[in-house]
Amino acid sequence: MQAEIIAVGSELLGPARLDTNSLYLALQLQQLGVEVGRKAVLPDRVDDLAEAISAACRRSPLVFTTGGLGPTEDDITVPAAARALGVALQLDDTAVHRLRWRFRKRHLRFTANNLRQAMRLSPARWLPNSVGSAMGQWCPTPLGHLVLLPGPPPELHRMVSEQVLPRLVKLVPRSARFTRVLSLVGLGESQVDALAAPIYSRVANPSTTILVTAPQQVELHFTAIASTLAAAQARADRLASQVARRMGNAVFSREQNSLAATVGGLLRQKEQTLAVAESCTGGLLGASLTQAPGASDFFLGGVLSYADSVKLHHLGVPAATLRRYGAVSAPTAAAMATGVCRLMGSDWGISITGVAGPSGGSRSKPVGTVFVGLCGTARPVETFRLRLSGDRDRIRASSVQLALNQLRLALQ
Amino acid sequence: MQAEIIAVGSELLGPARLDTNSLYLALQLQQLGVEVGRKAVLPDRVDDLAEAISAACRRSPLVFTTGGLGPTEDDITVPAAARALGVALQLDDTAVHRLRWRFRKRHLRFTANNLRQAMRLSPARWLPNSVGSAMGQWCPTPLGHLVLLPGPPPELHRMVSEQVLPRLVKLVPRSARFTRVLSLVGLGESQVDALAAPIYSRVANPSTTILVTAPQQVELHFTAIASTLAAAQARADRLASQVARRMGNAVFSREQNSLAATVGGLLRQKEQTLAVAESCTGGLLGASLTQAPGASDFFLGGVLSYADSVKLHHLGVPAATLRRYGAVSAPTAAAMATGVCRLMGSDWGISITGVAGPSGGSRSKPVGTVFVGLCGTARPVETFRLRLSGDRDRIRASSVQLALNQLRLALQ
Repeated sequence: MQAEIIAVGSELLGPARLDTNSLYLALQLQQLGVEVGRKAVLPDRVDDLAEAISAACRRSPLVFTTGGLGPTEDDITVPAAARALGVALQLDDTAVHRLRWRFRKRHLRFTANNLRQAMRLSPARWLPNSVGSAMGQWCPTPLGHLVLLPGPPPELHRMVSEQVLPRLVKLVPRSARFTRVLSLVGLGESQVDALAAPIYSRVANPSTTILVTAPQQVELHFTAIASTLAAAQARADRLASQVARRMGNAVFSREQNSLAATVGGLLRQKEQTLAVAESCTGGLLGASLTQAPGASDFFLGGVLSYADSVKLHHLGVPAATLRRYGAVSAPTAAAMATGVCRLMGSDWGISITGVAGPSGGSRSKPVGTVFVGLCGTARPVETFRLRLSGDRDRIRASSVQLALNQLRLALQ
Repeated sequence: MQAEIIAVGSELLGPARLDTNSLYLALQLQQLGVEVGRKAVLPDRVDDLAEAISAACRRSPLVFTTGGLGPTEDDITVPAAARALGVALQLDDTAVHRLRWRFRKRHLRFTANNLRQAMRLSPARWLPNSVGSAMGQWCPTPLGHLVLLPGPPPELHRMVSEQVLPRLVKLVPRSARFTRVLSLVGLGESQVDALAAPIYSRVANPSTTILVTAPQQVELHFTAIASTLAAAQARADRLASQVARRMGNAVFSREQNSLAATVGGLLRQKEQTLAVAESCTGGLLGASLTQAPGASDFFLGGVLSYADSVKLHHLGVPAATLRRYGAVSAPTAAAMATGVCRLMGSDWGISITGVAGPSGGSRSKPVGTVFVGLCGTARPVETFRLRLSGDRDRIRASSVQLALNQLRLALQ
């Protein structure tokens, strides 16, 4: 079965933003055996969009639009779809009621333009939005279905997983499909491919996809098709295990957990606690550890020691260490980690201090030089020197990932 | 003048890669006052691509294709363009000669399939490629021009700057374009639109776009066209100022700075310092303040007081306060803010404590209840109760934005 994706939004035609929603949709569809045959980006103009939707619905049985479901004059996907399919628009009382209730709950004023979000294509069914106010729509077309989805990625992702995939599974010819995902840290995409390709390229089913999903993080997706789900899963897992054996200790999850959640799980299992001391990352490590709920089981807190005075007075880094080795050094990282452990009474302490750039580098410590300290009860404090590349955002995110990875390896 | 961009390549329809060439092209075109009216991604199939090129050339005077000019069977842009325009293909002797010479120079074998790269649309002119072997083509169409460009970005960039822009400058009526962006915090998209639409909808030039760019953050883009850049800027700024006056103190930047960078700029200007005390955000506020380089001018650091023991022992929140009002309360937020100010010796202190969810809510403090504390020298400590909606990520990100906004308002 072939699908087309139409992203709606004039801002996606400028030099600053790309339609990234189509990557997510393509991945979900691929896993169901649905191929994306064409993508388009259209401006917020009813005529153009109606023409594009109409052409797509004449070509393909599945057409997805993303964006343009908001309450403003710019949001023209619903009227364009109505014109494309030659169907009427209905103001849906239940939807009006739901929107009013939603606004009241949030103490927001309900204005006339919000009624736009209650206009439904007459043959369509609503797709509830569990994150925002823009509901999606699922509308029959002569060849198949037109699916209107919201643009903001969190809303789109939830709606696709909760509403769209369960409907699609029923449409797609019956065969079971299972994807096993291996998440790896610390190896580059081409290293992973060089190790994995000799194994996965021998088989067509499962199919294999390599994705870079975060700095220092690569995912291998193995998708198998078989007559039953159990058979597909066994097939995907067999190949995943063969590949995983080649990857040493780089594989940290088979369930698409984040690295922080994986580390959190290991700490929870051992009933141990963690505190952090962050300099150049300024809180990014703590933010990442507390992104998933339940972090209070293992995360006590930390100290953001951006200024050297904080390293000195609150983490107990000796003045002599700062003077002799500098704030970006292995001895400072070691003292920060042991300092925060002692201060918070945690089982483990991680510290990060480095040159995130773009300025501040020197010949001996260029931009991208980062020291990670790791201390734990009943073991000597360890430090790791990282040599990272990329811009400031990338260096900070990579530091967090590789610091977490050191704790993961110590906990295993 | 309107342009369309068609990216060719089946790999651009999967879950791993996006057409980034269109961003570069859109920027170059925008600077000439040419608007990209539509973008599409097509697979390596002659029929589909011919149909798409034909439709684009019937709609728009400028059509660009990127990719599909290589020597393999997959490279089908030239035959598809020939079919779309109904023109013949010619094997060009000069091009064959040039290719053979290029191959000899590099000690590569010239095979029959390399002749594909010497096939020219009969009415087209070659666009030389100073980086690779795939030449581009510039072909007249009934409405204007079809331009075939190579896919690899270094080849595309050189060909556009050396060959395409000099030709375009002669075609495009001379006009300049300027976009002024207002960034707003704390108002929803529909509130902003309700306030702004009565003003911006009276004029077509500048054109106005509303974007949600982060939680609690909306951008208004005003793009004006005029005969000179100064006139376009004056025109965009006039409308931006009229709209800004309706927005009260919600506008925080006219230069697309982040809210954290705006607050950092205000602190730097006043030579004042800041420390943070974070509970439910776990470091997100510090991470956001240190995202831009130079934060050490104003940011001293902070305490991540995820566990109550850290609030008690390190921030000096009284045990009686925690017992009587709880960790998520105005008195605790106030004590956290004054505590971190005193501890770090900063001019300002911000604290955040709340229920980010999904569990942990109660009747009186449901998920999304967040308290922000703000203390500064020579002013009484203030607290703010936020009632936020959305998932955990959204509640945490909104907390950071609204906390930063309180400091911004205090600094103004």
